[in-house]
Amino acid sequence: MRILLTNDDGIYAPGLRALHAELCQLGEVLVVAPATEQSAAGHSVTIYSPLLVQEVLDPSKGFQGWAVEGRPADCVKLALRQILPWKPDLVVSGINSGSNAGINVLYSGTVGAAIEGAFFQMPSIACSMEMPGNEPANFALGARLALQVIKDILGKKPDPGDLFNVNVPDLCRGPIKGVRVVPQNTASYVEWFDKRVDPRGRVYYWIGPDFTCPEPHPDTDVTALAEQWITVTPLQFNLTRFPALEIMNDWNWENTTGQLATESVR
Amino acid sequence: MRILLTNDDGIYAPGLRALHAELCQLGEVLVVAPATEQSAAGHSVTIYSPLLVQEVLDPSKGFQGWAVEGRPADCVKLALRQILPWKPDLVVSGINSGSNAGINVLYSGTVGAAIEGAFFQMPSIACSMEMPGNEPANFALGARLALQVIKDILGKKPDPGDLFNVNVPDLCRGPIKGVRVVPQNTASYVEWFDKRVDPRGRVYYWIGPDFTCPEPHPDTDVTALAEQWITVTPLQFNLTRFPALEIMNDWNWENTTGQLATESVR
Repeated sequence: MRILLTNDDGIYAPGLRALHAELCQLGEVLVVAPATEQSAAGHSVTIYSPLLVQEVLDPSKGFQGWAVEGRPADCVKLALRQILPWKPDLVVSGINSGSNAGINVLYSGTVGAAIEGAFFQMPSIACSMEMPGNEPANFALGARLALQVIKDILGKKPDPGDLFNVNVPDLCRGPIKGVRVVPQNTASYVEWFDKRVDPRGRVYYWIGPDFTCPEPHPDTDVTALAEQWITVTPLQFNLTRFPALEIMNDWNWENTTGQLATESVR
Repeated sequence: MRILLTNDDGIYAPGLRALHAELCQLGEVLVVAPATEQSAAGHSVTIYSPLLVQEVLDPSKGFQGWAVEGRPADCVKLALRQILPWKPDLVVSGINSGSNAGINVLYSGTVGAAIEGAFFQMPSIACSMEMPGNEPANFALGARLALQVIKDILGKKPDPGDLFNVNVPDLCRGPIKGVRVVPQNTASYVEWFDKRVDPRGRVYYWIGPDFTCPEPHPDTDVTALAEQWITVTPLQFNLTRFPALEIMNDWNWENTTGQLATESVR
């Protein structure tokens, strides 16, 4: 089995190294990952600057892969179109430092990279782990658990383009209850900004590091994680709100159609 | 009616100015938009650098809004949490220079900003227009058509958080046929990279400017745009692939659960 591994914390992140060690049990793993941290990069891609690529060795001087001065999704695109010597059987992204659940799925570079893998019709899995508040994170254990989930998914022979979002809860909070398959929470988060003034009198804001989801929907990734389950959410990248499509097909677009005949031929 | 207007081409983009002029017919419009072009920013947000904010005047020296040195989604977040003197009734993003259809919806900063508006439970509309190959784009007409679509949508009294993606076809290609409500195309694009070597011998890649969708699914945003329809796609930000959820709930997570009792309590 051939695996492309990427992430959004950067190629030197401990989470990537831990997951790399685990994935090697499944076959050949090559890494194409951002040279620098790209948290909250979402599915952004780089179109106005060049993507510098450098080979990277692992701590024992073995060849590990390529660092790209770009976004997580750039890495997957470049890996699959240009860099990799083979077409992978699986794209894995992570393991991310911090969970990617609820609407954070949309901000996540980890998930963005996995979606890009799905664009290429690869089975793609985003893996993230919740960070403990005050202790160092146990990436080795998080990656070991993620590997078991990946094995379970692979055992079901995913179709090309099947996309999964896996989250491991904070391992310092206590033992894990098991695996739950849950939908993405869509409830709003509350975040805050710190307003400051620079020495030249210009106003700027920092987004605060802590954000909360005060009213998460029950039986979703956010609540299951908080209850110490490993969560697995099958994802899709068709954003169409299909129930509305049906209804809107019956709308009379009178403002628009009334203008069109005269306007658009000018 | 109070409207927040943003975009991903930057606050000085002609598409934003054109749409601003049209939206003023509906009520009070304030702009909070990126200081610089942020195309392909997707739903990325800025967490590791400060968001500088400066007031911007329109060409007639009237107050237009605020330029933010950040991403489109940052602008919406900052506008709704900090900057705007009122809670808007509508968030509009655009009109973008270039269509945002198919899987490009995921890369689009224009759409990312509108999704952020929907996170705040605002009706949110992303507006984009296809660019002509060799002629200057008629942003004034594109914005006029977008306004008509926005009026039609508002006439149906959208719910809080209702999210729409509007695309105007290339207006130089001929007259418009009307409005079609269509799903997002999910077929793959073909793109290419230009490999180069810098004066220091380092390899880098530019992503090519042209990409094609050789096999678009029929009756989608991509095909309808090509047939000269204005397209409207209702969007959602719940990425859960619900049909798979049902099936996966019956899976036996044996690899993972077998390990959990012993692993996670270490």
